[in-house]
Amino acid sequence: MGKRVGKRSVALDAPPVIIASACTVGGKEGEGPLKDSFDTISDDSYFGEKTWEKAESRMIKNTVASVLAKAALSPGDIELAFAGDLVNQCTVSSFGLRESGIPYFGVYGACSTMAETLALASMAVSSGFASNAMAVTSSHFSTAERQYRMPLEYGGQRPPTSQWTVTGCGALIISSGGAGPRVTGITPGVITDAGITDANNMGAAMAPAAHDTLTAHFEDFGRTPSYYDLIVTGDLGFTGADILRDLCRRDGVELGSGYTDCGMLIFDREKQDVHSGGSGCGCSASVLSGYILNGMRSGRWKRVLFAATGALLSPTTTMQGESVPSIACAVSIEV
Amino acid sequence: MGKRVGKRSVALDAPPVIIASACTVGGKEGEGPLKDSFDTISDDSYFGEKTWEKAESRMIKNTVASVLAKAALSPGDIELAFAGDLVNQCTVSSFGLRESGIPYFGVYGACSTMAETLALASMAVSSGFASNAMAVTSSHFSTAERQYRMPLEYGGQRPPTSQWTVTGCGALIISSGGAGPRVTGITPGVITDAGITDANNMGAAMAPAAHDTLTAHFEDFGRTPSYYDLIVTGDLGFTGADILRDLCRRDGVELGSGYTDCGMLIFDREKQDVHSGGSGCGCSASVLSGYILNGMRSGRWKRVLFAATGALLSPTTTMQGESVPSIACAVSIEV
Repeated sequence: MGKRVGKRSVALDAPPVIIASACTVGGKEGEGPLKDSFDTISDDSYFGEKTWEKAESRMIKNTVASVLAKAALSPGDIELAFAGDLVNQCTVSSFGLRESGIPYFGVYGACSTMAETLALASMAVSSGFASNAMAVTSSHFSTAERQYRMPLEYGGQRPPTSQWTVTGCGALIISSGGAGPRVTGITPGVITDAGITDANNMGAAMAPAAHDTLTAHFEDFGRTPSYYDLIVTGDLGFTGADILRDLCRRDGVELGSGYTDCGMLIFDREKQDVHSGGSGCGCSASVLSGYILNGMRSGRWKRVLFAATGALLSPTTTMQGESVPSIACAVSIEV
Repeated sequence: MGKRVGKRSVALDAPPVIIASACTVGGKEGEGPLKDSFDTISDDSYFGEKTWEKAESRMIKNTVASVLAKAALSPGDIELAFAGDLVNQCTVSSFGLRESGIPYFGVYGACSTMAETLALASMAVSSGFASNAMAVTSSHFSTAERQYRMPLEYGGQRPPTSQWTVTGCGALIISSGGAGPRVTGITPGVITDAGITDANNMGAAMAPAAHDTLTAHFEDFGRTPSYYDLIVTGDLGFTGADILRDLCRRDGVELGSGYTDCGMLIFDREKQDVHSGGSGCGCSASVLSGYILNGMRSGRWKRVLFAATGALLSPTTTMQGESVPSIACAVSIEV
């Protein structure tokens, strides 16, 4: 069961447990600062397949197998899966889970998808709709780049505000019992549009959504940023994270040293030439499933606010002169 | 709260109420057999906008305004909205709800989206995560046709198994109290792939998914088709509905005269030249929000099983030689 808290949030009465997490990333991510936190690093961007879309589905399939093995569960033990990605019609998720036999709800939250799948899976478990639910999210540099921007062969120049779509997948199993970090609260996102029309500046487009959701979260629960050991957005990148800090500061709220962003964590800004950082829903998915949850299990952080952000655009909306509406969904995870 | 029933289903302990529904369709749909059940029929396929994508967002916006007016609620009274469509990155939904201020979860279930949004909204309400939730789903012939198939100007020939994507939107408000039909059970879909590779024969691709979900539903709840006054899939069309009847018959299950399909209902097969019937998630959305729920309110049907089906393909998966995985989500609605 859930309890409405404040205007927009819910508290989970019986906080479900993240009993297992797994993540897979590509070669570039595997050379970054978080390399030790990933379960699998694939130097083959095709993951043994013939197309990048099939590669991304294969990455999902492998990550799902890995998280099931960690939890010592079989697909038949998972009663609901919530999954999403960036590819048109979310097909890499549906093909990735095609043979699993797991009851399936596809979601689309752009780069906020990991928070959305986690939120919905947690709601389903805490309400008795499932004993074990799965949240799966992925992105792939090569599927996203050619679909959202230009063919890779075109070699387009990237402006300093642009981010690098992560090749990565994260999968979580959320259960009614067991040991692990617990999902205690959810603040869903409201679509926010700051009027940004530059599709190469997603950080600026998404920061106002993160600001809106974090503000609602703190108000609803009567908390300040200091309640959390770690507040992590994903993926505002360096540009967007700076804007978010400024927006909060205007309200008199200091996010402080406990704030960071998945897009800032996953690549080395100096050495890896990614400009404003990582992006893609696989970024926050793999950082949450590895680095963050590992840190919670090891006692490094007790209270984490995971607020994934998504830019709800498409190449069509950009071509039609539209601005970039964005959303952020926040999930509080506590040990 | 929900209670697991059988292997795959859930029963809703406090069945949430569909307190209001609204639907908008295009001109062709408004000339069909269900014309009197639609709230709004627009002869302008642009809905006053300059592009079809903006038209679809405008249709969503209008339908949301209409359902709110019927329920005498304001957007601020809706605590969660679940919405989805067929357009790449689900942008017509996010743009349609951009100014609403309603907390938003985007979903993607292809043509099963109306059942998915209704299922998730019902779960959220019955568990106390929201007092009022909204389920919104749309499709538009012209956005879908040019995105999934060919530019309209190309004038491609349509084979007899092809279906006509409905221009339509349905919106429901699901509440913890009030009067109206109630959502009593949900059987989520499992991805099913019968190996069909003809993207112009969606009925054949989706019928096995409908068969799988209906079979699970009847088993889980210990029911036969005769429990329901109306079993309605959406959108198998004439071809797919025949296949579904055959598949059930092989199991010794007769769907009987209480079975029909939204894609068969919405157009006049003889006069409207739609070949195998209607499709697109706006088809089942507008048929449910108008014809079916009106019929339940007037006492024509007491128990309805609404099983929307989706083909989880994209033009990319078709070009890469993949078959068409499908899914069906069933929701039982009772007065």
